[in-house]
Amino acid sequence: MRVHAYAAPAASEPLEPTTIERRAVGPNDVLIEVAYAGICHSDIHTVRGDWGPQQYPLVPGHEIVGTVAEVGADVTRHRVGDRVGVGCMVNSCGACVNCRKGEEQYCVEGMVGTYGATDRDGTVTQGGYSTHVVVDADYVLSVPEGIDLAAAAPLLCAGITTYSPLRHWGAGPGTKVAVVGLGGLGHMAVKLAHAMGAEVTVLSQSLKKQEDGLRLGADRYYATSDAATFEDLAGEFDLIVNTVSARIDVNAYLGLLAVDGTLVNVGAPAEPMSVNVFSLLANRRSYAGSMIGGIRQTQEMLDFCAEHGLGADIELISADQINEAYERVLASDVRYRFVIDTATLA
Amino acid sequence: MRVHAYAAPAASEPLEPTTIERRAVGPNDVLIEVAYAGICHSDIHTVRGDWGPQQYPLVPGHEIVGTVAEVGADVTRHRVGDRVGVGCMVNSCGACVNCRKGEEQYCVEGMVGTYGATDRDGTVTQGGYSTHVVVDADYVLSVPEGIDLAAAAPLLCAGITTYSPLRHWGAGPGTKVAVVGLGGLGHMAVKLAHAMGAEVTVLSQSLKKQEDGLRLGADRYYATSDAATFEDLAGEFDLIVNTVSARIDVNAYLGLLAVDGTLVNVGAPAEPMSVNVFSLLANRRSYAGSMIGGIRQTQEMLDFCAEHGLGADIELISADQINEAYERVLASDVRYRFVIDTATLA
Repeated sequence: MRVHAYAAPAASEPLEPTTIERRAVGPNDVLIEVAYAGICHSDIHTVRGDWGPQQYPLVPGHEIVGTVAEVGADVTRHRVGDRVGVGCMVNSCGACVNCRKGEEQYCVEGMVGTYGATDRDGTVTQGGYSTHVVVDADYVLSVPEGIDLAAAAPLLCAGITTYSPLRHWGAGPGTKVAVVGLGGLGHMAVKLAHAMGAEVTVLSQSLKKQEDGLRLGADRYYATSDAATFEDLAGEFDLIVNTVSARIDVNAYLGLLAVDGTLVNVGAPAEPMSVNVFSLLANRRSYAGSMIGGIRQTQEMLDFCAEHGLGADIELISADQINEAYERVLASDVRYRFVIDTATLA
Repeated sequence: MRVHAYAAPAASEPLEPTTIERRAVGPNDVLIEVAYAGICHSDIHTVRGDWGPQQYPLVPGHEIVGTVAEVGADVTRHRVGDRVGVGCMVNSCGACVNCRKGEEQYCVEGMVGTYGATDRDGTVTQGGYSTHVVVDADYVLSVPEGIDLAAAAPLLCAGITTYSPLRHWGAGPGTKVAVVGLGGLGHMAVKLAHAMGAEVTVLSQSLKKQEDGLRLGADRYYATSDAATFEDLAGEFDLIVNTVSARIDVNAYLGLLAVDGTLVNVGAPAEPMSVNVFSLLANRRSYAGSMIGGIRQTQEMLDFCAEHGLGADIELISADQINEAYERVLASDVRYRFVIDTATLA
């Protein structure tokens, strides 16, 4: 099946309209008519080859929502017409210890990314900047009524990437959570941590987005460019979610953790971090990483968002604005996620 | 009260016999007649000024066991003649959130170290290389019958330093624990993790101490100088206790952790560690630190050791061998802890 898409023809070239082939719907597959696709910073890193060489043309997009257009003979979880979503992975071995625990993102054989990855059948995956996508039903989420479909798209990556560590490290009533960076991931971390009942503090470079931060659910907002912040908040937090994908002064942030506190990175800067072991010994602190979340937890996150009326704050764009949007993402000029109306792809 | 001791007269000079003053026994104090004092690598770092300037003469020693010689009027926990021990701290504020939780080592005002620290009354503490010591009863542990007193001394630091993270991160039946380095701390980590029911692997530079490691309770023993070790054991462990106080390739060790695994440092190298964030993101790994343990947990550790018949493997020395022992500790030439017979101090 030939479908419309927006693809990068090469690492150094702008994305452009094209058509790509989607596989025939297999017995356990779902054909999704894509309605919206979010633009994640990872899309830009990947198409530009920052994280290694790619095969081109490459169609990015791993924040996908739409409706089911067709299901394979063995599919029982999804029906034609259902609102569904697809996130950062479309396959995994399904048999290893991690897959069996529902942590498919840590599949021992490696999860299959939604685009630019070699699927288990040997084909290279193509993402959601496309009118249609065919995905194994086990990796297709249900988007509950009660979330605007366009605002739901970013939940599939930005939502689960922040929801998972918040849940894993116990954010909730009585806990103090800090969110470093108020971008696509950060704004979801604030909304989610607040909805979980935690006291939420934003640590941002400046106070430029303070009003937004408080509106999104933060209780406090501090500028990290102000050295006093690190004195005032020493030993305060149970959990710090670092959404910044650049190098930071890890030791300064570790100093903000209470006993048994954790600083968790959800983004991956290319350069290594320099960690002073004394920062870890004091207060028995941990420096951790977390990568999206399993399929079961992604569904839990979507249900949680529906229950609490949460979606991403988005700027809806048409396909011909994708390249401009990329420039604006790189300039941190988006509040807080671009979402492509895929109707404009056809 | 004037008592015999061994002290460093300056950072660059060998230790020598001397006498020091011990405070009068206050209402909540215990006077301990010291029987044995372990030699910890920290003693050497401290007296030599590696961790900052000190006041001299300085009496080191924070692995202290002996018998109670006198108690203050308000002391009910200890009686004259009891076998007791003192570890790395002799005071803390007692009122902060961490002290109230029994985590006095993370006292918000700073715990008071057993030697070279300013006590809450303004005096500088002096350690256990001494015939007698006066300590607040709340920081004095009971050494149960069933542990040889000399072999119990190192438990007060090497024991609790490894017991605490093993307990905190859930070492036990069904878990796989690796111990990096087979020295004073490492040999206790192996004994304790084995007694807790974990599967224990030693990761040592060479196979030189393999026989010892297996005898101490390790199930497996690998040389880290062999690159194949890091391939063979990739993703294996739930917990890695790093007892090496020098710089290591953290990312190589992080690669050995299973999903939700933790690499915990119990020693503190002076140089920062270089951490690749991808090593943390994969498998949601944590890099953590842990510093001794609280008083309640130290007692629990001593009781656990008595129950399981555990003590340190020691080389008993007389006071005049202290300086030679220091050289041998620095050369990693001790199996596995020097303990001073303090009867030889008088």
